[in-house]
Amino acid sequence: MKVAFVGLGRMGSAMARNLLHGGHQVTVYNRTRSKGEQLAGEGAQVANSPADAARDCEVAVTMLADDGAVEEAVFGDGGLISGLKAGAIHISSSTISTNLARRLAAEHAKHGQHYLSAPVFGRPEAAAAKTLLVVAAGDAADIEHCRPVFDSIGRQTFIAGAEPWQANAVKLCGNFMIASMIEAFGEAFATLRKANVAPHLFLDVMNALFASPVYANYGRIIAEEKFDPAGFALKLGFKDVRLVLETANECTAPMPLASLVRDHFLSAIALGQGDSDWSSLARVAARNAGL
Amino acid sequence: MKVAFVGLGRMGSAMARNLLHGGHQVTVYNRTRSKGEQLAGEGAQVANSPADAARDCEVAVTMLADDGAVEEAVFGDGGLISGLKAGAIHISSSTISTNLARRLAAEHAKHGQHYLSAPVFGRPEAAAAKTLLVVAAGDAADIEHCRPVFDSIGRQTFIAGAEPWQANAVKLCGNFMIASMIEAFGEAFATLRKANVAPHLFLDVMNALFASPVYANYGRIIAEEKFDPAGFALKLGFKDVRLVLETANECTAPMPLASLVRDHFLSAIALGQGDSDWSSLARVAARNAGL
Amino acid sequence: MKVAFVGLGRMGSAMARNLLHGGHQVTVYNRTRSKGEQLAGEGAQVANSPADAARDCEVAVTMLADDGAVEEAVFGDGGLISGLKAGAIHISSSTISTNLARRLAAEHAKHGQHYLSAPVFGRPEAAAAKTLLVVAAGDAADIEHCRPVFDSIGRQTFIAGAEPWQANAVKLCGNFMIASMIEAFGEAFATLRKANVAPHLFLDVMNALFASPVYANYGRIIAEEKFDPAGFALKLGFKDVRLVLETANECTAPMPLASLVRDHFLSAIALGQGDSDWSSLARVAARNAGL
Amino acid sequence: MKVAFVGLGRMGSAMARNLLHGGHQVTVYNRTRSKGEQLAGEGAQVANSPADAARDCEVAVTMLADDGAVEEAVFGDGGLISGLKAGAIHISSSTISTNLARRLAAEHAKHGQHYLSAPVFGRPEAAAAKTLLVVAAGDAADIEHCRPVFDSIGRQTFIAGAEPWQANAVKLCGNFMIASMIEAFGEAFATLRKANVAPHLFLDVMNALFASPVYANYGRIIAEEKFDPAGFALKLGFKDVRLVLETANECTAPMPLASLVRDHFLSAIALGQGDSDWSSLARVAARNAGL
Repeated sequence: MKVAFVGLGRMGSAMARNLLHGGHQVTVYNRTRSKGEQLAGEGAQVANSPADAARDCEVAVTMLADDGAVEEAVFGDGGLISGLKAGAIHISSSTISTNLARRLAAEHAKHGQHYLSAPVFGRPEAAAAKTLLVVAAGDAADIEHCRPVFDSIGRQTFIAGAEPWQANAVKLCGNFMIASMIEAFGEAFATLRKANVAPHLFLDVMNALFASPVYANYGRIIAEEKFDPAGFALKLGFKDVRLVLETANECTAPMPLASLVRDHFLSAIALGQGDSDWSSLARVAARNAGL
Repeated sequence: MKVAFVGLGRMGSAMARNLLHGGHQVTVYNRTRSKGEQLAGEGAQVANSPADAARDCEVAVTMLADDGAVEEAVFGDGGLISGLKAGAIHISSSTISTNLARRLAAEHAKHGQHYLSAPVFGRPEAAAAKTLLVVAAGDAADIEHCRPVFDSIGRQTFIAGAEPWQANAVKLCGNFMIASMIEAFGEAFATLRKANVAPHLFLDVMNALFASPVYANYGRIIAEEKFDPAGFALKLGFKDVRLVLETANECTAPMPLASLVRDHFLSAIALGQGDSDWSSLARVAARNAGL
Repeated sequence: MKVAFVGLGRMGSAMARNLLHGGHQVTVYNRTRSKGEQLAGEGAQVANSPADAARDCEVAVTMLADDGAVEEAVFGDGGLISGLKAGAIHISSSTISTNLARRLAAEHAKHGQHYLSAPVFGRPEAAAAKTLLVVAAGDAADIEHCRPVFDSIGRQTFIAGAEPWQANAVKLCGNFMIASMIEAFGEAFATLRKANVAPHLFLDVMNALFASPVYANYGRIIAEEKFDPAGFALKLGFKDVRLVLETANECTAPMPLASLVRDHFLSAIALGQGDSDWSSLARVAARNAGL
Repeated sequence: MKVAFVGLGRMGSAMARNLLHGGHQVTVYNRTRSKGEQLAGEGAQVANSPADAARDCEVAVTMLADDGAVEEAVFGDGGLISGLKAGAIHISSSTISTNLARRLAAEHAKHGQHYLSAPVFGRPEAAAAKTLLVVAAGDAADIEHCRPVFDSIGRQTFIAGAEPWQANAVKLCGNFMIASMIEAFGEAFATLRKANVAPHLFLDVMNALFASPVYANYGRIIAEEKFDPAGFALKLGFKDVRLVLETANECTAPMPLASLVRDHFLSAIALGQGDSDWSSLARVAARNAGL
């Protein structure tokens, strides 16, 4: 398939590479051109703008940091929407707001283009290993059409619904689940450290209990307080929890645990942890216990 | 080993049976005598009081519902403390307060007896399958001495520290981790149901993400809202979160997420859910969203 | 002074009338023209657009429901910004976001116009009685210049700072203080009703303790559960708490009590209370107690 | 009336003195005898134990720090219950738990004695000025009988109900109202300080808005951060919020704002503020904002 790929950060580069490996013709665009050129050696075309990349493609994937970056790449000068041909499909894999997803669906429709949300779960290593989880939503036929793309970047694809923003709601709720686990770990570790229980003892018990790689991974980081360098920056975790609260607001559904986590992320940022790993949220509970 | 076993509820009966299977000589006591007689056919002696059961035993295990039941079994008429010989060890496997654990340690010491806390993780099926996780704390030599007991009832034994109450702190924090997961699920499902996303879709994604049997089990119950009959009653979950807050208080460590969960449990009880499964905590979030 | 007045709701009409009584020449504009015509009989000119109203005026006051209404009145077709002469001052008395206040300051500056935020505390009866509290912020000379306007509408003027948005921050924090009092009342009344203590007894004690008309007023409404018709709609209270959280976010300052109140407002809206008085927030606590 | 008075701290001494001024015959007891002797010069008899003080009295008032102190004075060696004659009335004015109030009522009844709860609102200066608010509960005839006592110590007496513990519920809820106000002030001041708004400006606005001496007093302490010496120690405020949560628990009524305040008090204690004024709760919000 002829695919445009916009956004070559750690996640995006790995995903674009897997599309090449999957046999797709890939044209890439990144604001910093050098990242695109690395992929040129592996068979990618390098474009000068999102619009340029999208021209002649059936599908254009965007993988960017936040709402602002997506808005610029789609609606800005040389934006995707001005280059994508009628009938082509824009797949946004970024973790964006449900509100922006609705706007993208509406604006692409006005241009005779199609839009899918297909955010992914997984860290850069999972992206490289093609083990991402893809959560897609939008028109069923469009999703089927894009299957080869999803199959090239992830190990499993879930269909969240017929409205693209529903996939974003699922992605945001999933990140909320992880952030909640981090908060719970933080509070338990704080109490247990003051009880003179070794963090690793508790971690071992939790690993035996939950038997989850997510618990094992974050539990270890928190037990050892190795928050730098960040796997996923706290300020991005904060952004995601803000977005899930916006979605909950649109749905008129209170999420008090998300509010609690949001406030603790904000405190962490106030105290200079914005660029540390989001699991350093646990330090807020520790600090409030006088540790 | 000669073991007394006090408390033959669903958990206790299975544990006592596994002690018999493990080759121990077991004398049992239960307030309702009929439960003990079921085990008599499998080789257990049946006693008329905890003191009676404990006489001549090296080790006495108690597995009871809450602080009150343990206090009665130990300090009441015919209580354990009046029957246990000097040098014998009382192992409390109940989920009790850290405060009571300290009192038990002190009172047994006054009688020349030893005390260990060894609460367990696992539901009745795990008790029957001998796959409980045992978290023990107390004097290291006593723990070693009791290894054959722990090995007969669980699949793995963790040592939380030299003070018995530390094991209770770990157990309470572990239950807090599960309750937090339930709260997070409840809020995510509430928002997603209002977003018209099918609960099972989200559950499938979370199972792929966390790959944890605990998430799979509780996620399914919540997605299907099958809260009756209870696997673990909400009022007991409430008790455990109250106890973790008491422990946190003793440690001067705030646990705001535990407070949130406590308040939601209390609301659930006010609305008649005390005997439903503790995962029906999720209905509080649903109700607050108008579902 | 020659004053334009845009927005003739219950608050705005009373304020415009007091400007007339204060000897100012007032040109009014309201989307629904009939409201302006009521004031015509009292000496006001009636304009066809905000721009039209602002022409030749030294000062233009806007008193509108929310950010959207202010944006339309200022930046829309026939908006204030296109009619206000260079050097003239726009005073926004609406309860708007700090973010919009900054945007207004910047946009007016681009047009050689001046901008002040001067939100007010007080209900419509206070507006009629000229007992509003005015919180102004912006350029000190501009504030002095506008004194005669402030003196005509309120009983006291406070100066929050040199940046207009600071006045909005103060106004939002003030509304947060009231909402917090309502939440506290709601929780206390719920517990006391379940303790069979008469609500009026508690209210009498609180009136003796706090000796505040704000407590007396809201306490009575909550004790008697007379939430309709609304003095100030719950959905507007929700908006204000959302805005204070946005401001807190801009300032990197967590406000967990504001988060709690926000979530309870949202639950109230989910359960159909959006148009009731914002003090019906108290019903959330009552409902969570099974009342 | 012949009155025993037990507990001569700053509050108790002032109350006992006012009973003397009111023409009552007062026998006092205090653990540290010197405090009693100060009152001897003003006409009081000094007793050697609560029982000794209570002998021959119609009424015995206790004014002590907490549940533990009351339990010792009533049930300990030489305790009130062993000295009070049949038909005499014990009035507990201490801020104690509803649970202890129920126990006192039951135990006194067993001894043919009567029991009233009559906690008071007001600081030591109010006690000296005879402007306390008295909240009494219990048997209506007993309350009437004790009117001369209440009239001698306070400016107004409220009757909370026929069960003594109801008065304690009202007192605890009243202290919760004040603590909630402090939390709200703390969060607002934190945000506004980061917005470069002068604390006193906000305080002036709140004083104009609420017109309450309680707001004026605590607002000033917080704005100026003058938390030492304490008017009312933070650790006592923490105790009261814990007690209101216990009462709410007995009533099956969640109080999430009380939980939030409790957790912040606990954090303050972890960080060494236990002996500062309870309004230093505001420092928790400041600290979480990086101030």
